[in-house]
Formats: sequence, C-alpha cells, structure tokens
Amino acid sequence: MKAAILTIGDELLDGFKVDTNAAWLGQRLLQRGVTVVSMASVRDEQQAIEDLVSRLDGQADIVIVTGGLGPTPDDVTKAAFCSYFHSDVHFDENYWQVLVDRFRQRGYDIPDNNRSQAEIPTRAKLLSNSVGTAPGLEFDSAGTTFYVLPGVPAEMEAIMREHVLPGLGGGASIPWVTLRTAGMFESALAERLAPLLPEDDSVRVAFLPEYTGLDVRIRGVDNSPATRQRVGALAEAVESELGGVVYGRDDVTMEAAVGTLLSHRKETLAVAESSSGGLVSSRLTDIPGASAYLLGAVVAYSNEAKIAQLGVRPDTLETQGAVSEPIAREMAAGVQSLLGTHWGVATTGIAGPGGGTADKPVGLVFVAVSGPHRTVSREARLVPDRIAHKAATAQMALNLLRQELLSLE
Amino acid sequence: MKAAILTIGDELLDGFKVDTNAAWLGQRLLQRGVTVVSMASVRDEQQAIEDLVSRLDGQADIVIVTGGLGPTPDDVTKAAFCSYFHSDVHFDENYWQVLVDRFRQRGYDIPDNNRSQAEIPTRAKLLSNSVGTAPGLEFDSAGTTFYVLPGVPAEMEAIMREHVLPGLGGGASIPWVTLRTAGMFESALAERLAPLLPEDDSVRVAFLPEYTGLDVRIRGVDNSPATRQRVGALAEAVESELGGVVYGRDDVTMEAAVGTLLSHRKETLAVAESSSGGLVSSRLTDIPGASAYLLGAVVAYSNEAKIAQLGVRPDTLETQGAVSEPIAREMAAGVQSLLGTHWGVATTGIAGPGGGTADKPVGLVFVAVSGPHRTVSREARLVPDRIAHKAATAQMALNLLRQELLSLE
Repeated sequence: MKAAILTIGDELLDGFKVDTNAAWLGQRLLQRGVTVVSMASVRDEQQAIEDLVSRLDGQADIVIVTGGLGPTPDDVTKAAFCSYFHSDVHFDENYWQVLVDRFRQRGYDIPDNNRSQAEIPTRAKLLSNSVGTAPGLEFDSAGTTFYVLPGVPAEMEAIMREHVLPGLGGGASIPWVTLRTAGMFESALAERLAPLLPEDDSVRVAFLPEYTGLDVRIRGVDNSPATRQRVGALAEAVESELGGVVYGRDDVTMEAAVGTLLSHRKETLAVAESSSGGLVSSRLTDIPGASAYLLGAVVAYSNEAKIAQLGVRPDTLETQGAVSEPIAREMAAGVQSLLGTHWGVATTGIAGPGGGTADKPVGLVFVAVSGPHRTVSREARLVPDRIAHKAATAQMALNLLRQELLSLE
Repeated sequence: MKAAILTIGDELLDGFKVDTNAAWLGQRLLQRGVTVVSMASVRDEQQAIEDLVSRLDGQADIVIVTGGLGPTPDDVTKAAFCSYFHSDVHFDENYWQVLVDRFRQRGYDIPDNNRSQAEIPTRAKLLSNSVGTAPGLEFDSAGTTFYVLPGVPAEMEAIMREHVLPGLGGGASIPWVTLRTAGMFESALAERLAPLLPEDDSVRVAFLPEYTGLDVRIRGVDNSPATRQRVGALAEAVESELGGVVYGRDDVTMEAAVGTLLSHRKETLAVAESSSGGLVSSRLTDIPGASAYLLGAVVAYSNEAKIAQLGVRPDTLETQGAVSEPIAREMAAGVQSLLGTHWGVATTGIAGPGGGTADKPVGLVFVAVSGPHRTVSREARLVPDRIAHKAATAQMALNLLRQELLSLE
C-alpha cells in the first residue's frame, strides 16, 4: 500500500512553522506497512491545492491531507476539494449540535463563525474530531482515498487514531532497526561495515550523521518474513562488528543508556560543567527517575568557581589554563568528592565565538570521567559553532562515562 | 522571484526525521523577498529524484535541494543530478587537499571513502562547505538554478549563507513582525488585542501558542509601502498594549533578552536548579558572551545538596518540603550568596512522571529570584510531561528574572 502526504499552509512555505505532522504521519503509516512515496507542502491557495490533488489522484492508494480547515477566510482546503470533486456542501445539524454542546460544557456560547465547521461536502464522509471543532473529511475517487484533516497536531492525531489508522489495519510494519553510535566518523564506520552490507535490494542501510554521533538505520523494503529475518540478522551483525560504539537501539538516547547502566549498578553521578554550561546535567534529568543516580551538578564558568566549588588547584589553572586536560580531570574528581558520588564527569572547552587562541582554538574541548578506580580524559576539536559545540561536548562526556561503566560490567 | 524546495531522504518519508531544513530555507528566502511556491520531499531513489527535478525545472527561478550528498551508498543525489544534466564527474585535487588538511588539523588521517566528496560533476559549480566535507553544487539549466546542498543543517546553512543568499540579494522582504510573549494565556491575550486587529485583508495576525509562551505574528500580504507601514504600526500598537509581556521580537529568545539586560546593567547571575535540572543554565550559556554575567550554577537534586551547597535550612525542608515556595526563595538567595552575584534564580518542582501527591501533584513548580533589593517567587501548575515541564519551568524562571531586571530600569 502506498501513501502520499500533503500539508497545506502559508506558515509552512514561509518557514514560520516546522512541519511536524508529516513526520508523525510517516512514522505511523510505516508501522502499518504503508510506504509514504511522496510528501509535499502547498500554500493556502485553492488552485494550487487543486493542482496537487489532481496530480496525486491515482498515484497513491491513500493521501493524507492536513491544514486549511479552520473557520477563517485563509482556510480554503474544503473549497478546493469541493471544486475538484464537484461537490456541494450541506449544513449538518447533528454535527452542529455536537459543537454547540461541546462549547456549552466548557461554559461558553459557540461563536457564530463556527457554523462553517458544520458545512459538510455532500461527496465526503465526516470523520468526527474529538478534540477540536473542524471535522475530518474522507473523499473517495476511483483509485485513491483522500483523508482531509485539520492541521493542529493534536486534532490531526486524534482523527488519525480514531478513524483512519484502524481502517488501514492489518499491514505488518515494515521492519527496521536504528543502531545509534557515537565516537566514530561516518566514513570510518561505513568502511568498517562495507563487508556486511547486503547486495540485494530487500534491505536498505542508511547512515544518518549528526554532530552528536551517527545513526545506522536498517530498513526492509517489504514486510515479508524473509525480509524481517534479514533486517534482524543484519542489525545483530552490525552491532557485533561495532561493539561499544553502539550505545542503543531506536529511540534510546545517550542519557538513557548512561542512566540504565547507573541504575543497574546502583551507582551515583555528579557533573562539573564549564563549556557545556549545564547541558550534560539537563540531558541526564530528561530521563524519568534520574534523581536516583544524579545527585547534582556544578556549572563553574569562572576560575574562582572552579577553585572554590570544585577544589581545582590554582597552580594547575595558572600553568595549564582552564581549558586543559589536567583541569578537566581535577574538575571530575572534584565534583565526585564534593557530592560523594561513585562517578564524576567534567567538561572544559572553548565554545566560541570568542575566546580562542592559536594554541587553543575555538572548538577545543576536554572531557574527563573520574570513577571508582581511575580517571580518564579525552581531547577533541569540535565544530566552531556554539550550540553544536555544546551538544557534541555533552555527548562526548556522556559517552566516555558510558564506556567506563561498560568496562566494569 | 519564485523558489522551490526539495528535501531528499528516506528518513523524512519514514518520519524518522522532522524536516527542519525546509522551514529554515523558507524563512531566509522570505526575508529576501523570494516566495517559496512549493516544497516536496522524496526518497533516496535516483529515478524519483530525477522525476522531481525534471518537474521543477522551469517551474521556479531557483530550487534549493538538500540531502543525499554523503559518502555512503544510500546517497544518490549527485548521481541523479549527473544523470539529469548529462554530466560526468572529475576528481577535484584542490578540494581533496582542503579535506585532507581539515582532517589533519583535527589530528586524523582522512578515510579513503571521503574521496567521493571531491568528485565534482563537470557541469556543476562547486560551493565550498566551511563546516563539513560534502560540498554544495550549483547546476544551471535554461530558466532554473539548482543549489544542491548537504542535509546536515549546519552545513546547509553555512553554504546558503556564504554562497547562495548573498547572490539572491535585493528583493524587498514581505513585511512581518513576531512579538514573543510569556506569562499570559492565549484567550486573555486575544481578548486584549481584539480592538487593535485590522479589519482589512492587507495584514494578517496569527496566534502561535507553545508551552513556553505565545508568539503573535503580524504579516503583510504584499511588500507595498502601505502594507509595510501598516505592519509596523500594528506591531507597535500591540507591543505598547502588552507592555512587559513581550520579551522580544522575531528570533530573540528569553535567554537572549535576559542576557542583554544583565550585560547592559553590568550585573552578574547565579542559578540554583532542582526540577529544571540544568536547563536554565544551559539555555543561558547558549548565548555568546554569557560567561560575562553567568558566574555559575548548581543543580541540587537531593536535600543534602540543597543544604550543603546552597545553605537551605534543614527545618524549612522538613516543615515545607523540598518543593515549596520558601525553599525556592532560600535556593535563590543561597546561590546568590555562594557565588557572590547580583542575582540568584532558582527552580524547584515535580517534573514527573513519579513523585506527585494529592497536595503536590506532578506539574507543581516554584521559581524564585533574589536580587539586590528583594526576593520574589511564583507558583504554577504546569503540564504533567517531564520535558515540557522542564521547558516551561526554565522559561518561567528566566521571565521572572527579566521582570525584576526591568523593574529597576
């Protein structure tokens, strides 16, 4: 089964709004074995919408359309579909009553301009909206069913869950596995995996790089048992080839992987941050239950704070500078001792844009981990972009901690 | 001038990745008076890419294409363009040397399969990539210029800024202003603004709510001087009506607004975080130059850390509980005194999913600000979602600090 997604709205093409509906739909359809073959976005212009609808009609089994169903004059999606399907509208008294009641329950009189929401095209089937006022509409042409839904994500998702996805039922998900890696270049990783990659077309492998690491996605092209088996076997082969470079599968984050290891070992952690500015701690606390192992963090930007709070030695600061391997190590050991934890992790670097020198350029960073038995550290030269630098630094620090935790397993 | 955007990648159609490139591009093009007339996404399949390129050729003056330029086998964008433009590739020794040097500077030998990055189509112009290895490519056909760029956002953005956008110059932007607000409900805000809203169609106003606040977008429908004047006048009227509820215009973040006020006053800040887990500090350090005013932060999850590091009184903890207004105030004053800053800001709450009680449910939060003259605090019941709770807490704490700073101006 093939699907197309069409999202409608000036906000999308003007770039004021990131289109999250398309990704949500792609993922839910994939889980039901439906392949999305195209995605497009178009302005709130009746002719432009009609042109795209006409092109998609017959190209896919189903087309999910979102946006432009509101009560204001810029919403023209319904008019475009009525024109394409030569459909009149009728006023649906039952649906109007549903809306009147819903407003009344919240203690309001329904504003008059909501009446347009109950004007239903005669050629469409109404898909009721349990969380908003604009109903979904289903139009059937010879080979293609169009599901026309509101653009508000919660409303679109509710109508999909209640009316559309159950009808697509049955299709087994196309099998996929995402192996998440950190600490290895894309090209080096691809070279290492080359001998394992399949020569036939039933399984596709994608390398998806970010500054924080690289995801290897292994995806079948159909949902046959043979393909499913091949995807599983390849994922295991890749994982075994890469070993500790893989920190998790699918939606597992680095902070979740670290949290799982700490929970399992019943050990505690403290964080000392300079250039990452609190991001390591913030990411760790995104995980429910983090308070069981993360006792606290110190963000020490100034030399004074590094000395007073973390016990860094003034002469190390003077001889090595704040951005140096010895300081990273003293910060990690210092916060471990300050909070009495099993583990301490630290970052110090130059996130930029200012503060770089010839010797120590913007992007330079040191991370360190102090554990029960030893202290380790790493140096890197990261991208000279402040936000990306922080993200990569936090990932690097957490990954070093993960490797140290793994070495004791 | 008309533009189209084409984003390439299986991960987009499978919904594994939200397409942020398209929105970034739409926004930057709009700023130069270029209207994006269509956006489409397609899989990493050579034929599908060629089909779309063929359809876009002649439909827009420029087409921005992103994704599928990496060194791995799933990257087929370059091959598709070579096929469509009947172009060979040549190995660009100069560009290869740039790559070799860039790896060497970071202390690595360049992996061999990066050689494909230096294979440049003979019919394309090379657009060098200052932050990554895949160069951009420019293909010119009779009526349309295709800019083919890597999918990694920072790389795409760098090539756009350095090579593409300057060449588009000149077109007047369609006028718009975004007024960013925090601390006021959508319905209350809409009611307050209703008398100001325009009755004609030349200016559109949109209300865009998020958990961290609400943006009011005022946008003209054309770039005539009259429309430009109306947009500017309405933005000023709205800003004056809302007063301190507006923390910035357009891309200004709350952390940037706070940073500007602190820099201007030459005052310093320390942060004590419990439920926000480091996010307040991390957001503040996203701003270049934050080290001038942010001296440090303490993330104190445990009662022990609150007592030992922040000087919170054990009997306050015992009688009021860690999630309480008095504790938030003691934390703010404690970190201010610990680091000797003009200002201290603190958060304590229940981010969930666990830890709630009937009295103190998940979502409850207190924030406090201790300044040169007084300590203030606020209570709120936020959404019972951990990530959204952290985001809203950080925004609320920073907004309270901003209001206190403003009260001294």
